[in-house]
Amino acid sequence: MMTTGNMMKQRITGIAYSIPDQVISNEELVSSFNDYIDQEFVGRDKTKEYSSADFIEQASGIRQRHVIDKEGILNIDRMRPCLPVRNKDTLALQTEFSLPSCREAIKDAKLNHHDIDAVIVACSIVQRSYPGIAVEIKKALGIEHGWAYDMTSGCSSAIFGISMAVASLRLGLASKILVVTPELYTCHSNFRDRRSHFIFGDGCSALVIENVAVDSCKPGFDIVDVELKSDFSNNIRNDIGFLNACEDYNESSDNYMFKQIGKNVREEVVPVTVEHLKKHCEKIGLDRSNVKKLWLHQANIHINRNIAHQFFGHEVNDDQCPNHLNEIANTGASGVVISFKNHHEGLVDGERGILCAFGSGYSLGSVIVQRKEAL
Amino acid sequence: MMTTGNMMKQRITGIAYSIPDQVISNEELVSSFNDYIDQEFVGRDKTKEYSSADFIEQASGIRQRHVIDKEGILNIDRMRPCLPVRNKDTLALQTEFSLPSCREAIKDAKLNHHDIDAVIVACSIVQRSYPGIAVEIKKALGIEHGWAYDMTSGCSSAIFGISMAVASLRLGLASKILVVTPELYTCHSNFRDRRSHFIFGDGCSALVIENVAVDSCKPGFDIVDVELKSDFSNNIRNDIGFLNACEDYNESSDNYMFKQIGKNVREEVVPVTVEHLKKHCEKIGLDRSNVKKLWLHQANIHINRNIAHQFFGHEVNDDQCPNHLNEIANTGASGVVISFKNHHEGLVDGERGILCAFGSGYSLGSVIVQRKEAL
Repeated sequence: MMTTGNMMKQRITGIAYSIPDQVISNEELVSSFNDYIDQEFVGRDKTKEYSSADFIEQASGIRQRHVIDKEGILNIDRMRPCLPVRNKDTLALQTEFSLPSCREAIKDAKLNHHDIDAVIVACSIVQRSYPGIAVEIKKALGIEHGWAYDMTSGCSSAIFGISMAVASLRLGLASKILVVTPELYTCHSNFRDRRSHFIFGDGCSALVIENVAVDSCKPGFDIVDVELKSDFSNNIRNDIGFLNACEDYNESSDNYMFKQIGKNVREEVVPVTVEHLKKHCEKIGLDRSNVKKLWLHQANIHINRNIAHQFFGHEVNDDQCPNHLNEIANTGASGVVISFKNHHEGLVDGERGILCAFGSGYSLGSVIVQRKEAL
Repeated sequence: MMTTGNMMKQRITGIAYSIPDQVISNEELVSSFNDYIDQEFVGRDKTKEYSSADFIEQASGIRQRHVIDKEGILNIDRMRPCLPVRNKDTLALQTEFSLPSCREAIKDAKLNHHDIDAVIVACSIVQRSYPGIAVEIKKALGIEHGWAYDMTSGCSSAIFGISMAVASLRLGLASKILVVTPELYTCHSNFRDRRSHFIFGDGCSALVIENVAVDSCKPGFDIVDVELKSDFSNNIRNDIGFLNACEDYNESSDNYMFKQIGKNVREEVVPVTVEHLKKHCEKIGLDRSNVKKLWLHQANIHINRNIAHQFFGHEVNDDQCPNHLNEIANTGASGVVISFKNHHEGLVDGERGILCAFGSGYSLGSVIVQRKEAL
C-alpha cells in the first residue's frame, strides 16, 4: 500500500469561512422571546419565564448571532427559519451554504478546484444522508475526480475531519483535501427554550490540507500531530432522524431540536479538555509555554477562559486564546476554524499553536500546527 | 507525527454480521402490497399497479428479506416498521442493533473489548446526529478509551469506513478499530412503491481491523490497497433530515424515504465499477486472473453478474463472485461484508480477493485483501 511516509508533510494551505449577512442582537432575540412568553403565559406568572439580554451576555459572552433567516426566527408564531422547499435539481441548502467558503479556501491555498481530490463534510448534522452533501459540493465546485463523504462528530467535527484528512493524505488516498463544516445550527435550535435559544448562529468554514514535500516553501501551517477522544454523554442531544416516522412520535417536537444540560456540560468538559491538551503536548514534547495560540471551540466564554487558564497555568488574554462569541456566537464545528482564520497572523515561522474543539458525543480533539511562512 | 510506516500491516482479524430473525418472503410482501392496491384503487384499473413475486425474483434475485418488524411492514394501514419510542436513558435502536455483530467481531479477532481503541459507524443513514451512535456503541461495549465517530457514504459506507480505519491505523491514531454498519433500511424504505418495495432488508456487519507487525502470524486478511471514487447523482435519493421542519413540507412523505431511478442506476453503475476495479488492479500490478474472490455490494443479481463478467472477461460462478440476495436481499453497506464473512474460507495463504461496493452518492470503493492463514 502506498504511503507518503516521511517524504511528505501535511500542511493547511487554505483557510476560509462565511457567515450569513443577517444578524440578530441579544435585544432583538429577547424581545421576540418575551413576546412569545407573554402570548403563551397569559394570566400566569411570567417573571421566571422571561429571557434577558444582559443575562445572555454575562452567561455566555454572546451579544449577537448571524443567521440564515432572521424573520422566521423572530416571528413568535414560528420561531424557526423559514426555508423554501427545493426540488431535487436545485443545490441542497447545505451545499449552497458551503460554496463561498470552499471557493475562498481553494483561492487562499493558491489552487484551482481541479487540484482538489477529496471533500470531507464534517459537521454536527448533515441535511440529507444520500446522496451525500460532500459529493454534491464536489460536483458544484467542478471537481471531476476523487472522492467525498460526510461525517459527524458534533462540535468537534472539524478536528475529526482534519484528522481523517491527514490520515488519508498520509495513506496517499488523496493529495489535496477540502474539509468543510456547513453548520446551520439555527435550523435545529429551539428558539422557545430560554436556556438555549441564544447560543447558536449559522456559519461554515473550509480548510485545504495538502501533501507538500518536506522542503516545500509554500506558506501555511504544518500539522504536527492530532489527538481524538470520545466518551458518551446524553447532556447534549437531538433525536431528529429517519426513525422518527416509525416511532409515530408527535408528543413534543423538543426532542427534534438541540437540547442540553448546560451546567453538566460546563462542569465535565473543562477538566477533560485541559487534561487532553496537557497530554497531547507531553506526547510530542511541546512545552506549553511555547504554544503561541490556543484556538478553541466557541461555545461559552467562561469555558474557554477556564480551559486557557488551567492549560497555561496563568491568566491569558484574548490574543493568546482568541474568542469571537460576542460577534458570531456558537457556530458549532465552524467556530474553531473561524478563530484560526481570524487570529493566525501573529505566528512567525516555526511557532506552534493548537486548534481544540469539544462538544456533543462527548467528543473532543486537538490539532497541533506549526507556522510555515513564505520565504 | 507518528506513523506506523512500513513497520506495520493493517489486517482484518475479525468479521461478523447479524440479521433479524423475522423474515418476509416475496409472496408475503406481494400479498400485502396487492391488498393495499385493492384498497387504494377501488373501482379503478389495478392490473398495472400490482406487484409480483416472480417479477421480483427475476428482476433482482431477491426471494426474501430479514426485517426488524414484519407486522408493521405488512400491515396495509401502516406499511412501515412500528418502533416503540425510547427514552434517552435507553440505548438507541441502532446501537442495540449493532452490539451482537460488534461483540462477535471482537471475539472472532480473539480480542477483548478493552483492546479496541476506535469505533467508526459507517452506514447509509445514522438515526441521530448527536450524541453520535459510534460513541454510544463504544460505551455500550465497555470501551473506556479511544475515539468514535459516524460517517455516511450510502451503500459504499463499509468500504469508506475501512479506508478511514486503515488510514487512521497507519497514522497511529488507533491500534484496533471496529468498523460497524448498522443498516435499518426497512425504516427508510417505501413499502407503498412497487418499484422499490422489495429491495431492502435489515442487517449489520462489523469488522475489526488492527495494526500487526509485518511478521505477525495472526490469521486474517491483510489490506493490500484501497481506492475510493465519488461522482454526484440524484438517481438514489432520500430527503429526510433536520431541515424538513423548517421547510413546512408535508405534501408527500415519499421524499422522506428511499427513492431511485433503477434503470439509470443499473446502466451507470456497472461500467464505472468495472473500470474502477480494473484500474485498481493495474495500480498494484494484480493480474485479474489472480483475484480469487470478488465480494460485491448486494443490490441486484444482474448488476453483480455483469460486473463480474466484464471484470474477469468471462462468465464466473457464484463461488468466485458470491451472492446472497435470494436469502437476505439488499442490506445496504452491510452486504459486501456479509458476503466476505460467508465466503472467505476458500482462500489459502497469500491469495487475494476484492471487496467492492457502489451506490448512492454515487460513491464506490474497493479494498484488495490478501489471506493470512494461521501457521
